[in-house]
Amino acid sequence: MVKYKLLIAYDGTNYSGWQVQPTGVSIQELLQNAIKTVIREEVVVIGSGRTDAGVHATGQVAHFKCQGVLDLCRFVRSVNALLPIEIRVLHIEEVSQDFHARYSAISKTYHYHLNIGKAASPFNRIYSWHIYEKLDVCLLKAAAALFVGKHDFTSFANQADRGSAGHNAVRTMLMLNVVEDGDNVCLEFKADGFLYKMVRNITGTLVEVATNKRSIEEISKLLRIKDRRQAGMAAPPQGLFLVSVDY
Amino acid sequence: MVKYKLLIAYDGTNYSGWQVQPTGVSIQELLQNAIKTVIREEVVVIGSGRTDAGVHATGQVAHFKCQGVLDLCRFVRSVNALLPIEIRVLHIEEVSQDFHARYSAISKTYHYHLNIGKAASPFNRIYSWHIYEKLDVCLLKAAAALFVGKHDFTSFANQADRGSAGHNAVRTMLMLNVVEDGDNVCLEFKADGFLYKMVRNITGTLVEVATNKRSIEEISKLLRIKDRRQAGMAAPPQGLFLVSVDY
Repeated sequence: MVKYKLLIAYDGTNYSGWQVQPTGVSIQELLQNAIKTVIREEVVVIGSGRTDAGVHATGQVAHFKCQGVLDLCRFVRSVNALLPIEIRVLHIEEVSQDFHARYSAISKTYHYHLNIGKAASPFNRIYSWHIYEKLDVCLLKAAAALFVGKHDFTSFANQADRGSAGHNAVRTMLMLNVVEDGDNVCLEFKADGFLYKMVRNITGTLVEVATNKRSIEEISKLLRIKDRRQAGMAAPPQGLFLVSVDY
Repeated sequence: MVKYKLLIAYDGTNYSGWQVQPTGVSIQELLQNAIKTVIREEVVVIGSGRTDAGVHATGQVAHFKCQGVLDLCRFVRSVNALLPIEIRVLHIEEVSQDFHARYSAISKTYHYHLNIGKAASPFNRIYSWHIYEKLDVCLLKAAAALFVGKHDFTSFANQADRGSAGHNAVRTMLMLNVVEDGDNVCLEFKADGFLYKMVRNITGTLVEVATNKRSIEEISKLLRIKDRRQAGMAAPPQGLFLVSVDY
């Protein structure tokens, strides 16, 4: 068996998320079907992690194994021709047998896009979260900095991880930068791992702080008390992009 | 009667264009309905020009007349609350009675977005035209420059204008810049007026030249022979943006 690593971009707007689901159409499923048609072999495509419905990726990584040796250029062209335009394979390469898209990852980068214009932009509507209230970007930056470092992120993880991985919710946030560009504000997260809905939950809490609905002092407390119910609501999916996975 | 000027942005993807049509939902119609609900008065909203189905605007201008004097901030908030997120009123101001969104315009700017990346970007799919063939940007720039100046644009105007305004297809292209930004190439058109489908027809022809399907020498000939059938196909609507109207 030969093992291949894929780099994939997708607009998640019209899909039920990365992972095959009982209902809805997933990115994983469409990819598996397209690959099966091209290489005439059933494959399982393992992603670096799931993304939820409506979440996008500019640099999702996945792997699969197959019997044959592939013509890589032709593979990309043929698979893309079968996929909807919202999903693109950007690159494929052969990798060693011990590579695993999920377990070999050493860090991941997610971006969350906020829009703070007076009126929501019609052109960012499926790629950002529009904040109607006045947002204090300085306060946002100060609050974001408090998440950097090694913390127990239980207060910012949803159920799926609190059951199974609840005892190991410690992650290291390597970076949480706030980048302004006119009416757009991008939160750039890099960590050695992310819990379920962690980026959206942190973003929701940060926006509460930056719109003066919650004091910045609460963040340290939230990290300490390990109680999801005390933290802010999850930010909506359409602002979130999985940007890259490092190995 | 008081006259008001509106600045409007819209994502045209899901609409039948600016102008009220027998079938399909138009931007003009949705605006008129929203304004009627807010000011309790039937109005006719006159745009600077129609845009076709799938074409976008970041700076469409329109005017309307009404009996009452409006609270402008409240008007914008209320109308936007009634409109789908794809359509936003950005600004409203009172104008003199002799202002006319269409006839007072002295020039307009349109941008046409091309994407020349190896794979079509999932995120530009509704906002650009992806060119699969190799596109020579130097050749595109040289060809674009030939359109600048005062010309008869009959070869680049569709039926609707060839009937009525066919005898007056002379327009002055004030600017046709080609701006590169990575895999994105933007054609920036500014003219004292545009004929029906003129930007898309010129873009289609320019892309034929830049992908070596037509020689650059043909452009002067096309401007001279005044025959739509000899020029290139229209570029698809989704790459086109009405950017601004000058008065």
